[in-house]
Amino acid sequence: MSTTTRLASQAELTIDVYDTTLRDGAQQEGMNLSVADKLAIAPLLDELGVGYIEGGWPGAIPKDTEFFARAAKELDLRHARLAAFGSTCKAGTRPHDDPQVRALVDSQAPVVTIVAKSDIRHVERALRTTGEENLRMIADTVRYLREQDREVILDAEHFFDGYRYDAEYAVAAIRAGLDAGAHVAVLCDTNGGMLPGWVHEIVTDVRSRVDGVLGIHAHNDTGCAVANSLAAVEAGVRHVQGTVNGYGERTGNADLVTVVANLELKHGVDTLAGDGLRESSRLSHAISEITNISPYARQPYVGSSAFAHKAGLHASAIRVDPDLYQHIDPVAVGNDMRMLVSEMAGRASIELKGRELGIDLSGRADVLARVTERVKAAEAQGYTFDAADASFELLLREELDGVRPRYFSVESWRAIVQTLSEDISLTMAEATVKLHTGRGRIVCTGEGNGPVNALDHALRQALVDVYPELEDFELIDFKVRILDTQSGTDATTRVLIETSDGARSWSTVGVGPDIIEASWEALVDSVVYGLLHRDVHPR
Amino acid sequence: MSTTTRLASQAELTIDVYDTTLRDGAQQEGMNLSVADKLAIAPLLDELGVGYIEGGWPGAIPKDTEFFARAAKELDLRHARLAAFGSTCKAGTRPHDDPQVRALVDSQAPVVTIVAKSDIRHVERALRTTGEENLRMIADTVRYLREQDREVILDAEHFFDGYRYDAEYAVAAIRAGLDAGAHVAVLCDTNGGMLPGWVHEIVTDVRSRVDGVLGIHAHNDTGCAVANSLAAVEAGVRHVQGTVNGYGERTGNADLVTVVANLELKHGVDTLAGDGLRESSRLSHAISEITNISPYARQPYVGSSAFAHKAGLHASAIRVDPDLYQHIDPVAVGNDMRMLVSEMAGRASIELKGRELGIDLSGRADVLARVTERVKAAEAQGYTFDAADASFELLLREELDGVRPRYFSVESWRAIVQTLSEDISLTMAEATVKLHTGRGRIVCTGEGNGPVNALDHALRQALVDVYPELEDFELIDFKVRILDTQSGTDATTRVLIETSDGARSWSTVGVGPDIIEASWEALVDSVVYGLLHRDVHPR
Repeated sequence: MSTTTRLASQAELTIDVYDTTLRDGAQQEGMNLSVADKLAIAPLLDELGVGYIEGGWPGAIPKDTEFFARAAKELDLRHARLAAFGSTCKAGTRPHDDPQVRALVDSQAPVVTIVAKSDIRHVERALRTTGEENLRMIADTVRYLREQDREVILDAEHFFDGYRYDAEYAVAAIRAGLDAGAHVAVLCDTNGGMLPGWVHEIVTDVRSRVDGVLGIHAHNDTGCAVANSLAAVEAGVRHVQGTVNGYGERTGNADLVTVVANLELKHGVDTLAGDGLRESSRLSHAISEITNISPYARQPYVGSSAFAHKAGLHASAIRVDPDLYQHIDPVAVGNDMRMLVSEMAGRASIELKGRELGIDLSGRADVLARVTERVKAAEAQGYTFDAADASFELLLREELDGVRPRYFSVESWRAIVQTLSEDISLTMAEATVKLHTGRGRIVCTGEGNGPVNALDHALRQALVDVYPELEDFELIDFKVRILDTQSGTDATTRVLIETSDGARSWSTVGVGPDIIEASWEALVDSVVYGLLHRDVHPR
Repeated sequence: MSTTTRLASQAELTIDVYDTTLRDGAQQEGMNLSVADKLAIAPLLDELGVGYIEGGWPGAIPKDTEFFARAAKELDLRHARLAAFGSTCKAGTRPHDDPQVRALVDSQAPVVTIVAKSDIRHVERALRTTGEENLRMIADTVRYLREQDREVILDAEHFFDGYRYDAEYAVAAIRAGLDAGAHVAVLCDTNGGMLPGWVHEIVTDVRSRVDGVLGIHAHNDTGCAVANSLAAVEAGVRHVQGTVNGYGERTGNADLVTVVANLELKHGVDTLAGDGLRESSRLSHAISEITNISPYARQPYVGSSAFAHKAGLHASAIRVDPDLYQHIDPVAVGNDMRMLVSEMAGRASIELKGRELGIDLSGRADVLARVTERVKAAEAQGYTFDAADASFELLLREELDGVRPRYFSVESWRAIVQTLSEDISLTMAEATVKLHTGRGRIVCTGEGNGPVNALDHALRQALVDVYPELEDFELIDFKVRILDTQSGTDATTRVLIETSDGARSWSTVGVGPDIIEASWEALVDSVVYGLLHRDVHPR
């Protein structure tokens, strides 16, 4: 029977969503979450509408112990239940004598997730105990936690590899947990080597051998974490684990938003509490601000490129009928269709982009041709307008109006960074700008904790008497890209700057042989664009 | 029947691999390939062992016309055949009268891939012609190209969406191409909205209705491009399209290396000519150097994190038996297992990392404890040693030996950037360093096209008389990361620098309130590490 039919016939189906961003996600290379970070992420996961938030391993990791202590007091979750992650008791011990198990109870988390070995090779070689003792440890630990009135989830580590090596033992491990009262037994593809067909086959067999609710925990080592999760659901699991943005060790865990969007939008299955999916793009980006891992533009559903169109071929057709060129309405995940301005785009894309900016270019073939030419030339130098709408709009308006608004002219600028000893804390940066406005010449020096910061201060201080509107402007993001990394510091640098005036924000781009020059260009564009959009006239 | 069984029973199975990095991949946001870039990438694809390289759309895009002209003269491909991509003839025209079709023939490419509409809605609304005329255009164009002695591949655009709307028409479109002599009809999930179960079901049905070889072209909008490609192979397609690193519009195309690695290593299917898979990590990274898109660390198989382990839990067990913790041997794709140094890692990881660097720390519990403490403290400040082995080794040796080699001390340094007019080409950067070595005080000024470049020049010029070994050192990569982007230019900056001495390269890290200070720290580490590894003693 087909996948479509199989799930469509179960319209009442609901799947529990278990988020492990704060625990397994935090294993990712380069990620380092503080307690405050975790306390900031948890409400966002709750807003997304997941059923469970795994917060960490209290007892084993001190900051996770602190997280649960503070979470009990500070977090007010609407949908999600907090889960503490830990291990079964040790070989030869009883759960109530094992400090690690006691710490899970002490964490006050209503849900406890117990990782257990289900691959006999791991039992014998890593735990160095017998298969029988491992089953005893699983059963005893689950029973003890149930007596403490916890919801118990059993994570069967290395389940799929274990099953392929010794299916009887792997099944016995989860049966031990379920028989002792575990609410769910989660089949983990810990090494991430599975393919969807294998997952479907194994889950189907396991379902025929045990009673109880099964779950899936997939990693992306074959690029199939999402598909493996779907295959498990199609084979009957009712609990899906994953992380926001697919964070996790090695290639990451299953990306929870992608799995959920596929289940909800493609299969019509109920997964999240509330309407969180429609906010998922914002929530995904907010979480990446906290984890400080740059968002991945090509991420399905929520990535900044996910509904971005560049091909000239498409751009002209999209004007006719947008639905023919998107697999879902981006609004369903809080994302937007975007037209990209690039040399590959024809005039049709630039006309559409103009419309997006509120500028009607239909019938202005001359302007369109000139803008297209300038975009091509600028891209050849290293500029990109994909992520710098404000710089693009300045270029477009300059071609439309014939001139660029002349709020000020630049006589010269200079930035100095120096340190007077090996002690780096004595470093200082200062910048001096010399400008002209209609009201005369201005010389202004600014300090900062770096040359770009000092230039930003000097430029805005110089102009604020003439243009008090600049008071509200603030730099909120600053990105640097070295364009030709093979030549090291001799390369071209591109800077993208995002500025906010409290009400809205805009992005500008600068390119130069070094970061200071590139930043200066983007800073100047940012000021000009901000003043232009406040309808300020040159003074 | 299960997936495993289905493919395993066909050990003689071979799949044609068709790379479209240079055409569909180049549609990615932010990508801009020159003719020289394409000519540099094609031999790398050939080395990987793909069967086909789609080079672009000659006639429609001037630089693609140039690419094919130069490729015919300059490229010497061992395995791959070059394919020119284009469209069927226009409605109401004959192929030999259509300049776009003629340009495909003129490109001299031995293979021509024709995109054709197979969704009746696209035929009527985008092409604005009839279903019947579209079938005529397909058949005539294929027949004409066959008469010109080309291998012809039909890309059936929007096939899956078209099939779900009007299966009869979608099938008629590919039948028109195959009946006219197309060698392969490729089913394209152009909008990327398919799931593996659907792909399997549709391909199975299409195979029962047409004779001829089928192919698959998947996009990753549901996070299932790889799994969709596998599902199509399982249902009987024998030609797989994709791009290196999954480049492509929106969320990208199917990542060809991941698809191929799954087929070869998991299913034992023959896909690539030669032994290219074992070189795929290097080739993937080499291509990303040319496309100038930063490699994605979490990319399956070839990503820098793909076999990197951080969890303390795993690190201690990996010492016992590495095979229990990896789904394949990383050598099969030219990658390596790596242990990450991080606060989450216990001493076991640091000991393993030491072993990787050739430093035996077993029995040195005191050193391990101090190094672990310092790594934790440094990471809290923003350092990362994941990607800066040389800085980590300096830290480790300092704790081991009690001191850091003192090649020089720093009295002060200064960098100045200034421009004397609005004309940015007049900008200059210079840096002055004042250092002490055993041979006396050195004051040296360097110029550069930016402050870091100037500092790099000043530092090395100052020292080269005392340490002539520095002659060979060259900065080859320079990465900047703003750590807390929400505070704009006030944020902490992390710089990673890669230096080469011609024979080997090493990476160092610096952190500071601005890019200049952070760079200075990384530059100093780079010089010290380089001298240390040449067994130079302080002079």
